[in-house]
Amino acid sequence: MVRVGIVGGTGYTGVELLRLLAQHPHAEILAITSRTEAGLPVAQLFPSLRGCVDLKFSDPKTAPLSGCDVVFFATPHGVAMEQAGVLLDAGVKVIDLAADFRLKDPIEFERWYKTPHTCKDLLSQAVYGLPEVNREAIRAAKLIGLPGCYPTSVQLGLLPVLEHGGLVDTTSLIADCKSGVSGAGRKAELGILMAEASDNFKAYAVAGHRHWPEIVQGLKAIAASAGKAQGANDLSIAFVPHLTPMIRGIHSTLYARVLSHAQRFDFQRLFEERFASEPFVDVLPAGFHPETRSVRASNFLRIAVHRPPESDLLVILVVEDNLVKGASGQAVQCMNIMFGLPETTGLSHVPVMP
Amino acid sequence: MVRVGIVGGTGYTGVELLRLLAQHPHAEILAITSRTEAGLPVAQLFPSLRGCVDLKFSDPKTAPLSGCDVVFFATPHGVAMEQAGVLLDAGVKVIDLAADFRLKDPIEFERWYKTPHTCKDLLSQAVYGLPEVNREAIRAAKLIGLPGCYPTSVQLGLLPVLEHGGLVDTTSLIADCKSGVSGAGRKAELGILMAEASDNFKAYAVAGHRHWPEIVQGLKAIAASAGKAQGANDLSIAFVPHLTPMIRGIHSTLYARVLSHAQRFDFQRLFEERFASEPFVDVLPAGFHPETRSVRASNFLRIAVHRPPESDLLVILVVEDNLVKGASGQAVQCMNIMFGLPETTGLSHVPVMP
Amino acid sequence: MVRVGIVGGTGYTGVELLRLLAQHPHAEILAITSRTEAGLPVAQLFPSLRGCVDLKFSDPKTAPLSGCDVVFFATPHGVAMEQAGVLLDAGVKVIDLAADFRLKDPIEFERWYKTPHTCKDLLSQAVYGLPEVNREAIRAAKLIGLPGCYPTSVQLGLLPVLEHGGLVDTTSLIADCKSGVSGAGRKAELGILMAEASDNFKAYAVAGHRHWPEIVQGLKAIAASAGKAQGANDLSIAFVPHLTPMIRGIHSTLYARVLSHAQRFDFQRLFEERFASEPFVDVLPAGFHPETRSVRASNFLRIAVHRPPESDLLVILVVEDNLVKGASGQAVQCMNIMFGLPETTGLSHVPVMP
Amino acid sequence: MVRVGIVGGTGYTGVELLRLLAQHPHAEILAITSRTEAGLPVAQLFPSLRGCVDLKFSDPKTAPLSGCDVVFFATPHGVAMEQAGVLLDAGVKVIDLAADFRLKDPIEFERWYKTPHTCKDLLSQAVYGLPEVNREAIRAAKLIGLPGCYPTSVQLGLLPVLEHGGLVDTTSLIADCKSGVSGAGRKAELGILMAEASDNFKAYAVAGHRHWPEIVQGLKAIAASAGKAQGANDLSIAFVPHLTPMIRGIHSTLYARVLSHAQRFDFQRLFEERFASEPFVDVLPAGFHPETRSVRASNFLRIAVHRPPESDLLVILVVEDNLVKGASGQAVQCMNIMFGLPETTGLSHVPVMP
Repeated sequence: MVRVGIVGGTGYTGVELLRLLAQHPHAEILAITSRTEAGLPVAQLFPSLRGCVDLKFSDPKTAPLSGCDVVFFATPHGVAMEQAGVLLDAGVKVIDLAADFRLKDPIEFERWYKTPHTCKDLLSQAVYGLPEVNREAIRAAKLIGLPGCYPTSVQLGLLPVLEHGGLVDTTSLIADCKSGVSGAGRKAELGILMAEASDNFKAYAVAGHRHWPEIVQGLKAIAASAGKAQGANDLSIAFVPHLTPMIRGIHSTLYARVLSHAQRFDFQRLFEERFASEPFVDVLPAGFHPETRSVRASNFLRIAVHRPPESDLLVILVVEDNLVKGASGQAVQCMNIMFGLPETTGLSHVPVMP
Repeated sequence: MVRVGIVGGTGYTGVELLRLLAQHPHAEILAITSRTEAGLPVAQLFPSLRGCVDLKFSDPKTAPLSGCDVVFFATPHGVAMEQAGVLLDAGVKVIDLAADFRLKDPIEFERWYKTPHTCKDLLSQAVYGLPEVNREAIRAAKLIGLPGCYPTSVQLGLLPVLEHGGLVDTTSLIADCKSGVSGAGRKAELGILMAEASDNFKAYAVAGHRHWPEIVQGLKAIAASAGKAQGANDLSIAFVPHLTPMIRGIHSTLYARVLSHAQRFDFQRLFEERFASEPFVDVLPAGFHPETRSVRASNFLRIAVHRPPESDLLVILVVEDNLVKGASGQAVQCMNIMFGLPETTGLSHVPVMP
Repeated sequence: MVRVGIVGGTGYTGVELLRLLAQHPHAEILAITSRTEAGLPVAQLFPSLRGCVDLKFSDPKTAPLSGCDVVFFATPHGVAMEQAGVLLDAGVKVIDLAADFRLKDPIEFERWYKTPHTCKDLLSQAVYGLPEVNREAIRAAKLIGLPGCYPTSVQLGLLPVLEHGGLVDTTSLIADCKSGVSGAGRKAELGILMAEASDNFKAYAVAGHRHWPEIVQGLKAIAASAGKAQGANDLSIAFVPHLTPMIRGIHSTLYARVLSHAQRFDFQRLFEERFASEPFVDVLPAGFHPETRSVRASNFLRIAVHRPPESDLLVILVVEDNLVKGASGQAVQCMNIMFGLPETTGLSHVPVMP
Repeated sequence: MVRVGIVGGTGYTGVELLRLLAQHPHAEILAITSRTEAGLPVAQLFPSLRGCVDLKFSDPKTAPLSGCDVVFFATPHGVAMEQAGVLLDAGVKVIDLAADFRLKDPIEFERWYKTPHTCKDLLSQAVYGLPEVNREAIRAAKLIGLPGCYPTSVQLGLLPVLEHGGLVDTTSLIADCKSGVSGAGRKAELGILMAEASDNFKAYAVAGHRHWPEIVQGLKAIAASAGKAQGANDLSIAFVPHLTPMIRGIHSTLYARVLSHAQRFDFQRLFEERFASEPFVDVLPAGFHPETRSVRASNFLRIAVHRPPESDLLVILVVEDNLVKGASGQAVQCMNIMFGLPETTGLSHVPVMP
């Protein structure tokens, strides 16, 4: 049994961790903390957990986190970097679902998150928790910076092409991404009220979204580690996120211009082969279009590869559940790897449809 | 392992059976049939099942249904009554999710379903598959007529009051019920198009819905079996269903006038005691309001009991997932009982929230 | 031209007033105030108004409200009662869309709104702005307390029956009401986030909602003014509001037990005759069910009358757009009456469907 | 008064024409036809029209269409091309909202619509009804082929850039478009059921959508008429439509690589100047993001121009109501132009928000 602690359990990634871990055969939740809700039964805040989770929220100061094998931070950014050090010193592994350990460069962190990074010494040992890219590093890691929801879909969608190299023009990639509203978190904000966000569609943050530097860093790392230094150095991507009126799900539509010598390249086969042994990445047959509900409440990410007519573009369609493969499910996947469990343990939920 | 067959797998109750049974540790799906889709991989019609269910739809004529231990009918009404006899003769148990074996009176069946009942001899041995009412009969049953989605919520909501007797005026009960659109089935009909049913709310079939005679039959049976012949004979209930713009979920708001001598009766305690040992029925603390998403994709049914101010009315709020406790989950619950498995086997999913 | 001021223009009733008044041929908006947004162009906060409304928000302290013919308060409760006196003294008519002048009894006001009423002297001259009931009083009024959204639908739905008297048992009426989320206002609250309220259904405030005393007061007044003192004194109604996942619209399902001598009474005809000359109340033909979208963005309220099978109940279905007939449209309707304009002026929008 | 006929009034563009024309001060609807619903009051099929439209559906064979000044075809493709000739001969102007007169090349028509074009002689005199491009031709036109909903947004979004020429690489444009479900029409199809399309997002028809050749034809015509033959000949665009879970609205996200010498070009100013005198095209201030609800139920189309960080891409965001500016509103706009009415007559509805 892996003994688990969760810091910050009142948001959507926190309650999703509870949903997944409550059904995980080799995990035991020792504590879940909340400053504001300490003492309250978890199932009183989230009635969906009645009969499933019997815990109360603990005060962060007194919670037995150092007695855990692993602690998940399902907090806003800025919390994990304050507390990770003590836990790591106590031999507790740490998985941060927020942004504190995603960006390798603390100056970039401060630029995008408007606060200095207070734990720079740990940044170098933090592993970016994207199993399909970093599985071996995750296995040995003590500290995980879990990818953001958008970056997971964009990086996995472009992974085969960048690893292969020489297929597309990497100087002007495009990620046109659409997210459900749970991606904005469980925060009382006007813009995500149902009366505002439902029956509506819009782009936002085109001038710069926090996930953009993470995407750039990740794509460059993929290209570089595949020995495609050229592709890495010049790589540029425009990231345009949109808010779509649904609860869960991200759909990323990725565009890349195919180089002239690669116009007849078999991209379908490239993708199928690259992900053949990945338990959670599903490449659809040629001609299919993935839909977000086909992964709802599951850890799957599904991809389809298209070439539109009379165009030099490659179009890659990617769907994931932003709260599962885009957050809490990927966190559990990392935990499984870190503790030597089969990677799919507790993650074999069938997507909920309709 | 219980060997399972499913007849009619292209509707929502069929795909939900697949979702539940694919994760059931003691069930093995031998065959799922569809006249129109024979030969097609199930996961091609329902991409959510890719990586989870590896079956193809079988032709109903050649499917190995007689080699099953149990066959579920997830068909429109009229199919099970044609085929149940042969299967029962072959020693196969039958659970019909449609209406063929719900109404005890074939004349009532014909009145509401506009087709004669062709299998009257089996009607008498069919057991109404509501475990909280008929658990022992289900254990011994060979043929189950599974309750409708609305009737499940209405009967369980009124069960404690009717069994106790003498508390409310049973001559003018009200069931004001609200259902998500999946309750209408996976049928190409204008009225349930998203452009028609979304951002909209309406009542329908106030003049008479097929679930109304089933509700009346069920409530009278409950009252009668509790020795409340008086309550049973005079019992009358108005059933007003509404279509609400969500996918899954039923919310039933039940009204009953409390008799003058029972105005101070402790209904909260009555409900808590009645359902204390029921694994899937959850009575909320006093003052709470259940919400449909708190049971989404799970077999729970949650109930709250209220007394509005300056009124002689008892208000009972009931929520269920119409495709789980209101259909496929309840079917699996019956299967578990019929085959001596723990009743919650394969049904301990944590509700999906948000 | 009626010169109009709006106090509190940042909520949904405020922006809806702008939508209606911008298209009103005999109204001119002089000022719209907001403490927090003073100086901001209205169309910057509400881009839907770009090209339609050219105003800026004014500071409430300096806005030329006393130069208006009428001022609408689209504020939270508690504001109008502080400011109405000064305006009335200056000869300005006042229409309060909030609750300050709805309840005749200041003790009831304080009980439900948790703040003392600070303007009791004006309460007696305030007219309850329900034109179908109080048209003549509105014509002469200087101060209007506009009905709440739920109370409008419940009172108009029960109006013909209560005015007639002797038809139903008024001691145990039921209003089972369902509202879209815009009814909760434009406030940053967790419960009305799209991720919380969408794909979900629940009842709330069954133990007591602020619109309940208003409904009781209104129904008793209707019965009393029709000379049905008996009906008025004993009248009791249970009010159960529900939140339904749509933006606009209220659907009220009203239940009343028909007295035994009135079982064959022609309720359809009663309703048709009562509302025959009402421009905004539409009685559907027998057997129809109104849907909320059939009145979306319009001032119509549609009603259908039903008798469910084998029941002594009368079921009345009422739909309205909570922001139009339930708020801003009714406010403009009152304004038209108060200023001698044809009642439908500026209110003949065709409902938006789909 | 313009005397109007509508052929095919049971779809969404038909009922939207009725909504707009019923409020149009200079139009009078003489007849609306439907083969299947002849004799039925329009308001019985569409209860939103009760009290607003008093017509019955006519049989197409007997309807007084030749007595109209203009006839709108709100039919599936293939109908207008059979009937337009007779009407034109009778001096009736024709506006086809379907695809029959959009594509200039009948071979292209047959390729995409799978039926031969039966009215090739009229193709040459048909004017493409996009007022911002073809206003003068529309003024003189007798036969209008109205643009599709997607093509309207894509063409107007790229119009200033293509007319100017020399700013972007036109050989690899991208239109990533998202449409609400009403764009699929009022047809009983599984894929647009609420239980299928709600809480879901997907791309479709990436391999080739019927609006793609229309977009290509339109963009090439714009470039050519501006004397940019080079841009016209090489122009290529990938069109990826997506289905988004809302009723009305299209959001097009357009991408073009800015040529190196134009990196500092002031695109914001270009767009503002180009559309300064267009009554229905609104260019948002720099930095804003348009949302579909800001044009809901109105004829506005709003545009914003962005340059994402560290990218050579121009991103153009366009929103419209697919049933208004994308169909019926644009049809009325054309009618106004054709009959010498002020272009905004009957089209000054304020968008409905929320």
